[in-house]
Amino acid sequence: MPATQEINIQKLGLIAGGGNLPAYLLSICKDKGIEPFIVGFDGQTDSELMDGHCHQWAEFGAVGKIISFFKSNDVTDLVMIGGVKRPPLTQIKPDLKAVKILSRLGLRALGDNDLLSVLKEELEGEGFTLHGIQDFCDRLLVQEGALGRFQPEADDWIDIELGLKVSQEIGSLDIGQSVIVQNGMIVGVEAVEGTDALIDRCSALQQNGRGGILIKTRKPQQDKALDMPTIGVQTIVNAHKAGLAGIVLHANNVIVADIKTVAKYADKYKLFVIGAPIDKKSKSVTERTPKA
Amino acid sequence: MPATQEINIQKLGLIAGGGNLPAYLLSICKDKGIEPFIVGFDGQTDSELMDGHCHQWAEFGAVGKIISFFKSNDVTDLVMIGGVKRPPLTQIKPDLKAVKILSRLGLRALGDNDLLSVLKEELEGEGFTLHGIQDFCDRLLVQEGALGRFQPEADDWIDIELGLKVSQEIGSLDIGQSVIVQNGMIVGVEAVEGTDALIDRCSALQQNGRGGILIKTRKPQQDKALDMPTIGVQTIVNAHKAGLAGIVLHANNVIVADIKTVAKYADKYKLFVIGAPIDKKSKSVTERTPKA
Repeated sequence: MPATQEINIQKLGLIAGGGNLPAYLLSICKDKGIEPFIVGFDGQTDSELMDGHCHQWAEFGAVGKIISFFKSNDVTDLVMIGGVKRPPLTQIKPDLKAVKILSRLGLRALGDNDLLSVLKEELEGEGFTLHGIQDFCDRLLVQEGALGRFQPEADDWIDIELGLKVSQEIGSLDIGQSVIVQNGMIVGVEAVEGTDALIDRCSALQQNGRGGILIKTRKPQQDKALDMPTIGVQTIVNAHKAGLAGIVLHANNVIVADIKTVAKYADKYKLFVIGAPIDKKSKSVTERTPKA
Repeated sequence: MPATQEINIQKLGLIAGGGNLPAYLLSICKDKGIEPFIVGFDGQTDSELMDGHCHQWAEFGAVGKIISFFKSNDVTDLVMIGGVKRPPLTQIKPDLKAVKILSRLGLRALGDNDLLSVLKEELEGEGFTLHGIQDFCDRLLVQEGALGRFQPEADDWIDIELGLKVSQEIGSLDIGQSVIVQNGMIVGVEAVEGTDALIDRCSALQQNGRGGILIKTRKPQQDKALDMPTIGVQTIVNAHKAGLAGIVLHANNVIVADIKTVAKYADKYKLFVIGAPIDKKSKSVTERTPKA
């Protein structure tokens, strides 16, 4: 992978959802002397995030309000960071700007991925530049190879190749990013329940013997400036509890939050956690000799 | 749909798994004066099924034993009926015949659908004729249209078309047959957990407002003489408990066990249960005016 071209800006707008990544990006901003301006969503964004920073609480449909906030603070660079759960459509109160978008889009805005792409397009149309968090930190995307000491066994590669293929197909249908595979069988497919719930339920669905493998990839159509697939320490803890054999991540396309701790926990639990590339042509991994 | 050409035989071999369908087929055999010969699997087939009938208990890998049983009883027509859970590969004890099959196939036999197709091919190669249960009973496959009094609302058709499309894609990947859709979102995708567990977990994953829709279709490559998708009264009860709005079944390709009771329960719970066709070309349903 080429080294990330880190960007050089004074102000950064954060459209912040849940999880640890918004706080992590704030710590990067602090290190680099970037002033953050934060938009948070009621009930989804951690309110501690806002402390001491210029911020704005918004409802999900308040597109105009969000744009005004950034414009009035001369913020032109934005990051959408952390998962946001879309409320039921009936509970979204679109402001004038949002109504304009929705009337232009109609039902195309129903899918999750489309909704974010649309917001990105709209923000870019207003003159903003959207970035991915990986633009601010070289070491955030998983590289090809093992994170810790453990590697897949030779036989695991049959399941890994199947999982990479199927997770990409699932992704291209905008269903989810993750699957769990064991003995050539798709044990579970992630949809709206999220990766943690997928891992949890697959605990009981696995066959005896070597545990299943979690495979997580970026959807083929997923914008790198939008919500990148992410794992963290909790994913490793959950995988261990569920008796999985390992985790395979789409190399250069999945964010690993707190990579050192993740590697430490992977070793502690004797799980393999690896980055693996996807062969674009075959939508499968490239042929390779499994490492011992 | 053309009326089923019911077959006329004296003896029928049942390779029987779990669920209610094997007993149902036995009752059809009784009505029609067909003598049944049953192979059951330890821990999977209801032992009461065997009472008073010529039968044979078998382990999963005992292909040679199964073939001998039918041949020694001059049985040439077979039905594989009722779900069979494949044991872990390490626990299958293949006999000589099974070893021969596995060595010919290698890892292709790992997928569920392939495993059954392979068994069918092998049995046909030995001179047996495989039938689907629908060959013995006209009224077993769901027709196009509503089973009970309720119909989808006009807006439901967006979710139904999406669900039919996605369930076919999931099916073509040999993952599962069912999805639950709500407000344009795939709430859940069935893999090895089965339809009941899918319905159960989607209960909590739905958004407020009108409930989700369960869509179940036959996999494009699924052999009609093998395990056809099936629903029964319990599916309706579960759907009601989970707050679903309705159920859509692939017309002429899903078995509804005990259709009268299913329709009665659908009405009782105010659920729509319909058969809908799939447009082969677009892999989606054909355009139509929703019924009021």
